[in-house]
Amino acid sequence: MNNGWRWLEISKDILNPFSMIDVSLKEDSMRAAVASGKVFLKPVTLRAIKKGTVKKGDPLAVAEVASIQAVKKTPALIPMCHNIPIGSITLEFEIDEKSVKATCKVTTISKTGVEMEALTGASIALLTIWDMVKYLEKDEEGQYPETIITEIKVTEKRKESI
Amino acid sequence: MNNGWRWLEISKDILNPFSMIDVSLKEDSMRAAVASGKVFLKPVTLRAIKKGTVKKGDPLAVAEVASIQAVKKTPALIPMCHNIPIGSITLEFEIDEKSVKATCKVTTISKTGVEMEALTGASIALLTIWDMVKYLEKDEEGQYPETIITEIKVTEKRKESI
Amino acid sequence: MNNGWRWLEISKDILNPFSMIDVSLKEDSMRAAVASGKVFLKPVTLRAIKKGTVKKGDPLAVAEVASIQAVKKTPALIPMCHNIPIGSITLEFEIDEKSVKATCKVTTISKTGVEMEALTGASIALLTIWDMVKYLEKDEEGQYPETIITEIKVTEKRKESI
Amino acid sequence: MNNGWRWLEISKDILNPFSMIDVSLKEDSMRAAVASGKVFLKPVTLRAIKKGTVKKGDPLAVAEVASIQAVKKTPALIPMCHNIPIGSITLEFEIDEKSVKATCKVTTISKTGVEMEALTGASIALLTIWDMVKYLEKDEEGQYPETIITEIKVTEKRKESI
Amino acid sequence: MNNGWRWLEISKDILNPFSMIDVSLKEDSMRAAVASGKVFLKPVTLRAIKKGTVKKGDPLAVAEVASIQAVKKTPALIPMCHNIPIGSITLEFEIDEKSVKATCKVTTISKTGVEMEALTGASIALLTIWDMVKYLEKDEEGQYPETIITEIKVTEKRKESI
Amino acid sequence: MNNGWRWLEISKDILNPFSMIDVSLKEDSMRAAVASGKVFLKPVTLRAIKKGTVKKGDPLAVAEVASIQAVKKTPALIPMCHNIPIGSITLEFEIDEKSVKATCKVTTISKTGVEMEALTGASIALLTIWDMVKYLEKDEEGQYPETIITEIKVTEKRKESI
Repeated sequence: MNNGWRWLEISKDILNPFSMIDVSLKEDSMRAAVASGKVFLKPVTLRAIKKGTVKKGDPLAVAEVASIQAVKKTPALIPMCHNIPIGSITLEFEIDEKSVKATCKVTTISKTGVEMEALTGASIALLTIWDMVKYLEKDEEGQYPETIITEIKVTEKRKESI
Repeated sequence: MNNGWRWLEISKDILNPFSMIDVSLKEDSMRAAVASGKVFLKPVTLRAIKKGTVKKGDPLAVAEVASIQAVKKTPALIPMCHNIPIGSITLEFEIDEKSVKATCKVTTISKTGVEMEALTGASIALLTIWDMVKYLEKDEEGQYPETIITEIKVTEKRKESI
Repeated sequence: MNNGWRWLEISKDILNPFSMIDVSLKEDSMRAAVASGKVFLKPVTLRAIKKGTVKKGDPLAVAEVASIQAVKKTPALIPMCHNIPIGSITLEFEIDEKSVKATCKVTTISKTGVEMEALTGASIALLTIWDMVKYLEKDEEGQYPETIITEIKVTEKRKESI
Repeated sequence: MNNGWRWLEISKDILNPFSMIDVSLKEDSMRAAVASGKVFLKPVTLRAIKKGTVKKGDPLAVAEVASIQAVKKTPALIPMCHNIPIGSITLEFEIDEKSVKATCKVTTISKTGVEMEALTGASIALLTIWDMVKYLEKDEEGQYPETIITEIKVTEKRKESI
Repeated sequence: MNNGWRWLEISKDILNPFSMIDVSLKEDSMRAAVASGKVFLKPVTLRAIKKGTVKKGDPLAVAEVASIQAVKKTPALIPMCHNIPIGSITLEFEIDEKSVKATCKVTTISKTGVEMEALTGASIALLTIWDMVKYLEKDEEGQYPETIITEIKVTEKRKESI
Repeated sequence: MNNGWRWLEISKDILNPFSMIDVSLKEDSMRAAVASGKVFLKPVTLRAIKKGTVKKGDPLAVAEVASIQAVKKTPALIPMCHNIPIGSITLEFEIDEKSVKATCKVTTISKTGVEMEALTGASIALLTIWDMVKYLEKDEEGQYPETIITEIKVTEKRKESI
């Protein structure tokens, strides 16, 4: 990485490193991305979440706030992500008998897509849930033999001109 | 909070969670907000501030910088605040015989108002002043029987089309 | 501020700016601080909080998470605050017919007190509540004639040797 | 969450909210945690990573730095995580014919474990790799039908007295 | 600083502190800035960088990522800098027999220039290189008699209307 | 960087990546570091600083607060820096007929030295001064032909057992 120019967005005019060809010249578009993922938890943990008896508080409420904050921090977390104005962030949780699914939707009017923002939001939501229920998931030796985060993917991406 | 979609800005079309109805579609406007608040301090402390003899330095100079930095951090502090470009931030301090009043004005051209930014700026200014004069305000038991922050409010909000 | 040394903690040996006399040499103690404050809101807003019908979600749940995050950010907000390990953070909310009171308690084992951390936690909790109910508090002209944050103070501070 | 005290670490003495029972009184121990996860990528992407021909630079080098930075930001991302001194952070990547596996090990001498730090490090490493190879993973409609992050888990946790 | 209004951008209408005259009303322009600087290192260190044998990893790869992240953090580091959308960030390193030169170019479409962003990027790149090779630069007493960062300047600034 | 383990502090036992050998096992020591640097400015600028007539406010007061904040952010800026408790931070400025010199001293009781913290503090102080006087330093074409930051070095480093 040390013998040439690197672009956040690759310039087409690589012989002229001072060209202005970069994301600045892209048109603003309406953009949205939806990402989701799952954290598999013990039945006892899922029951505690549903009943509202988790000791530290409601894991989904805390995860929602953590996720919204993480989406806004994406350019500080993923080095090549641009700092862009976020239009909206929405979280949805679904509990089935084996896992909690987190779905994070992000919208913007900007020059770049928001799939990394949505993926970051879903990931931090799932990590926060894990953190809130650690004491239920640990075995006697302090290990997590069953807890696992999986299926983090972008389920939809949209781009429309303004 | 865990059984439905949540919007930073509430969608009117709640049955279609993937609608693009959010702050992105609002028009940019010129916006300003002014917030103020007071910290009540001992006479000895107010004299030290006026005379410039506070040991750690000028509380108002430090408070001004802290406040400007805090205004820019508002979306990292108040979860539902959007990250928006700040046009200007201004601080004004008034000392009377019982308190220091901090007034913070924030302007932007954006889709959302900046009252939370102005309130955050005023609040952090007052907290910073308190921190700078702690050693004068504490009683012998390390308590603060007289120090109090109060009257934090939005004194003016404006919105004009561009 | 530009013609001498400034200390986070004032050195006793001001003639020797390279002395090691600073907070590093203080003994670690068990420390706790409790700070509280109030946000005055309209009756309709207080009813919406109690009934759980605020559009953006539960203001107190969001305020609690925001407050916990803000306590940990205190040294980034208040310039002269040290970065110290936080032992625990607790929030309590009380709703009466005119206001919501937020009480924030912070504990640590450290060389410095945590009253600024507790004050920051209480302040950000109150600002977050305001942000969550803005749409109920605004009058037709977008002003906040009744909303006010007040009575932010340190109600208790403790220090015990380990 | 709004009608009682909440602890970062639950107090055993819930009737006395100002008790000092919290993580501060735990003994410091030597602690380590290892977390890993995988991102499934197209064969063409994996070849480009191995050959060093990814346009934005080496995804694994960028992911390693991003991961190290994210580990240190864990208490700002996961609300109930304590801010603790991190002793070491190590990343390992393995590429097979379908995926890149990231393994993040974190050590500390502290009062709390570091599994959330290791999980955050592994998650951000995988998200950063995704971001670096987006242009190879997208189909013609800008979707990611094959890219997926999976199997994020804690593979080992240790605690030893000093 | 405590007896008047302060502007991020100085208002022309200082008698009317609630005027809207600030950066918000400037036109957006295409802007670029290039800043560079040098860190002087021992011959043994420069050889280790060229051969890729520095123990902690490739200093230039780490410096590049650190620099990109620092550019985006500029408004959190330099108090009077506006938070603006960054279009592109590029780093270039040149090694001669006495030093490593870092050149950082930043582009934006915005109301303010990006020279502080480019200067911050170059500075943090050089500091990161220093940090990566500390063990080679220290003498037996742990001092750095030869290491020095120098010649940090803005080599080019451009502004073009859109 | 992608085919092996990387340590913040290099393990001596590289065949056992899960060894606990890292900074955690080092003894805490009293440590101090002093770093300094200079920004060369026009005579008119230096006069304005001395007379207190810089439009945006006192550059040295703002630089001091910015520097203190930057020292505490060092582990977020320099990737391989540990997050450690800072004991004290002190800034000193000296103005001669060609430049402002900033000297930053940092102390800690910790397992690692604080030279990167002191260097970061000095660097951000100088960048902040530049930012505050930009309007005086620019020529008619908006360039900075004379402004330059130079001679950033560690002038003293100390380590003493507790």
